[in-house]
Amino acid sequence: MADQLAGLSATDIAEGVRSGRFTARAVTEAHLARIASHDLMLGAFTSVTRARALKQADAIDARRAAGEALGPLAGVPYAVKNLFDVAGVATLAGSKINADDPPAARDATLVERLTSADAVLLGALNMGEYAYDFTGENAHFGPSRNPHDSSRMSGGSSGGSGTATAAGFAAVTLGSDTNGSIRVPSSLCGLFGLKPTFGRLSRARSFPFVTSFDHLGPLARSTADCAAFYDAMSGYDADDPACQDRPAEPLSPQVSAGIGGLKVAKAVGYFRQGASPEALAAVDLVAKALAASEIDIPDAARARAAAYVITNSEGATLHLQRLRERPQDFDPDTRDRFFAGALLPAAYVNMAQRFRQSFRGTMRSLFSGVDVILAPATPTVAPLIGQKTFELDGVTLPVRANLGIYTQPFSFVGLPVMTVPVWLEGSALPIGVQVVTAAWREDIAVRVAGHLEAQGLVRSKVAHLGA
Amino acid sequence: MADQLAGLSATDIAEGVRSGRFTARAVTEAHLARIASHDLMLGAFTSVTRARALKQADAIDARRAAGEALGPLAGVPYAVKNLFDVAGVATLAGSKINADDPPAARDATLVERLTSADAVLLGALNMGEYAYDFTGENAHFGPSRNPHDSSRMSGGSSGGSGTATAAGFAAVTLGSDTNGSIRVPSSLCGLFGLKPTFGRLSRARSFPFVTSFDHLGPLARSTADCAAFYDAMSGYDADDPACQDRPAEPLSPQVSAGIGGLKVAKAVGYFRQGASPEALAAVDLVAKALAASEIDIPDAARARAAAYVITNSEGATLHLQRLRERPQDFDPDTRDRFFAGALLPAAYVNMAQRFRQSFRGTMRSLFSGVDVILAPATPTVAPLIGQKTFELDGVTLPVRANLGIYTQPFSFVGLPVMTVPVWLEGSALPIGVQVVTAAWREDIAVRVAGHLEAQGLVRSKVAHLGA
Repeated sequence: MADQLAGLSATDIAEGVRSGRFTARAVTEAHLARIASHDLMLGAFTSVTRARALKQADAIDARRAAGEALGPLAGVPYAVKNLFDVAGVATLAGSKINADDPPAARDATLVERLTSADAVLLGALNMGEYAYDFTGENAHFGPSRNPHDSSRMSGGSSGGSGTATAAGFAAVTLGSDTNGSIRVPSSLCGLFGLKPTFGRLSRARSFPFVTSFDHLGPLARSTADCAAFYDAMSGYDADDPACQDRPAEPLSPQVSAGIGGLKVAKAVGYFRQGASPEALAAVDLVAKALAASEIDIPDAARARAAAYVITNSEGATLHLQRLRERPQDFDPDTRDRFFAGALLPAAYVNMAQRFRQSFRGTMRSLFSGVDVILAPATPTVAPLIGQKTFELDGVTLPVRANLGIYTQPFSFVGLPVMTVPVWLEGSALPIGVQVVTAAWREDIAVRVAGHLEAQGLVRSKVAHLGA
Repeated sequence: MADQLAGLSATDIAEGVRSGRFTARAVTEAHLARIASHDLMLGAFTSVTRARALKQADAIDARRAAGEALGPLAGVPYAVKNLFDVAGVATLAGSKINADDPPAARDATLVERLTSADAVLLGALNMGEYAYDFTGENAHFGPSRNPHDSSRMSGGSSGGSGTATAAGFAAVTLGSDTNGSIRVPSSLCGLFGLKPTFGRLSRARSFPFVTSFDHLGPLARSTADCAAFYDAMSGYDADDPACQDRPAEPLSPQVSAGIGGLKVAKAVGYFRQGASPEALAAVDLVAKALAASEIDIPDAARARAAAYVITNSEGATLHLQRLRERPQDFDPDTRDRFFAGALLPAAYVNMAQRFRQSFRGTMRSLFSGVDVILAPATPTVAPLIGQKTFELDGVTLPVRANLGIYTQPFSFVGLPVMTVPVWLEGSALPIGVQVVTAAWREDIAVRVAGHLEAQGLVRSKVAHLGA
């Protein structure tokens, strides 16, 4: 029973708790038990908020017993990347240095909104240090491992978020995505990951990386779960200056709205270069199902380079004082990149920023002709933990920086992207496809993901973790 | 007669041409004659478009003879800083390198609009190389000299614009202002200079310096002339991506609208430090006349530093290729600053940009309590040509970089500023006062300038140039 509860979707759990088929406490305990049994091996959590979770679950059950109405996510267990503030827990952002910070005084806005929806927070999740990562490895807290093959990476930087959702530790997790940090672990762990439009979801009381293109969003095992969490979190928040005050447009009704009338195109050129046969086959499978045309995104390589340069420099600026005072306490894999960023001449960053402005216009005009662009989420399936390099089109490249070659061009101009998980025939590992739309059109991405899921072309599995 | 015509205001010339008291040709010839007699010494022009001017003047006179209506600036002679495109003339931007460029194919948008208003273009004006200058000196084309004392600087970088207007070579000139390049020469040459809100006047087909805070605007010998030129130039232009589409609000009716109900404050703190007795006396005179309170602008020194760092870095980025390929062809005084900018670490620029965002908010909230802030335009009256340093509060500082200490904090956040000229009793040299308002409130600045001018507290003089 416990493991059955731990495998349920968010929508099934909320329905079961509201209808009384099972209690929020039973659901919470089932997930906590699964974490206790398996997370020492997988490394998803850095902090399990057991007491808080059980207290909240009991309160939900008591309110139901008293005949009160429950929220839309009643009893749904979730967890957050440890860059979200959780009251009483230090916000690590994957760093040993931040462990010296006092505990957060108040939950992040998105956590507060999920609490209002009666979702149950299980804890804070492991991540790449200061989010500068695509592997899910961390020198201080160990790697978060891929539940489908624990010798492999979860992907990063929201590695613990990918691990926890795929392992059935939580129905849904929250991550952050600056250059691909939701989409890469979604691809490697076989999840539905939604990076909304820049300015859509509040980042108040979360630890930043590159303020002008940091995004927060959910990783889930179904389109419907992704949409349900997004709906509970969306809406204006004055505490994030970038958050835009726009009418709320719930995504849940879009999950089964179908794809009638949508024009879909598969990105070619840059987005075929360096991709493994699995990455190409996954995109081709989805493209065929959607009768996609082909589209070339001009300057995509330059867009990735510009995102890289701005990230390197702004990230280093954010950490300048820590780099000066405590260089030895950084993860060596991020420290060297931050040092490089601190020394970067401003001229390169200025050029990147100027290009970024024009690339926004390029993407805007492309989306006047199509509704959806498809691209691989990662060039390969999950690499092995500890693997430093891989070959893309015969060129040996560092894994850490290059798992995001296809995600970076979209996020630095703030476009919404939903990653959908493909399991190719005969493959033991999943790989993701990016469904990219125009700004503020998450609804279209969700329609596409819902349709593909209904057709059985994309799907998520709870990993079998053994006894 | 000729010299009388050359001394007239723009509004008087337009009235005289329209009414037939004199011809556009006579006005144009009078100004060309004055340029021919005196500009070899003063160095205002780099190119006199004599044939174009006379042809246009004759066409205006012919249209009047045919009974056609004339534009609001009928026959008014003006000239432009040589960073404006003038068809058939290479756009020098003060540089020897740009002299190798082909002639511009089409006039700048502002020149086209002034042509439509029947103003007569006399030519292109000298300026500090690539606008990185507050002195009006130029190693290639010689200094533009102060007509009130030709051993002194005109101020820069719109040095030729200051010289030409104060010398009576043109009724009005156009300049550009990134950090103070309209306001500094206006102060040193005793002119009314208007730097409008960022995004107000089109910069299409002008040579840039720091795109995110380059402004264009007029330098004139009266508030009314400033307003009349602004009115003829304002309005949306899709060719400048920063130009905002806002309702046209003519400034000319505001010149005599009075200052009833305006709350005025004199900036203290940073804006008193380093100021010469003349600069302080000029501000105090104006402040007293306007019954100004006092206001402290928090972080003004930091604002100036941030403007400096962003300018240095973005300017160097713009010229990177030229710096690599033709370093020997730069003015030595700008080359070294550009080199420094090219080597600046991005971390400093990132911090400056972040501060800039918050300083915008600081200024916005200050302007919720007052309508006008007064500050000195320059720390001193015009220094001697060739003078490399001066003492501000006993500290020896380079003149070139420090004439703009009071102008920089306002322009890098795009606020409109009108500089008004004060002649202190017994002083042979003028000095300017900045009238700063909230964004898009040029109308208030013009009301204040018009009032002060009507009271005789501020005024402009055509310099006596001798035989």
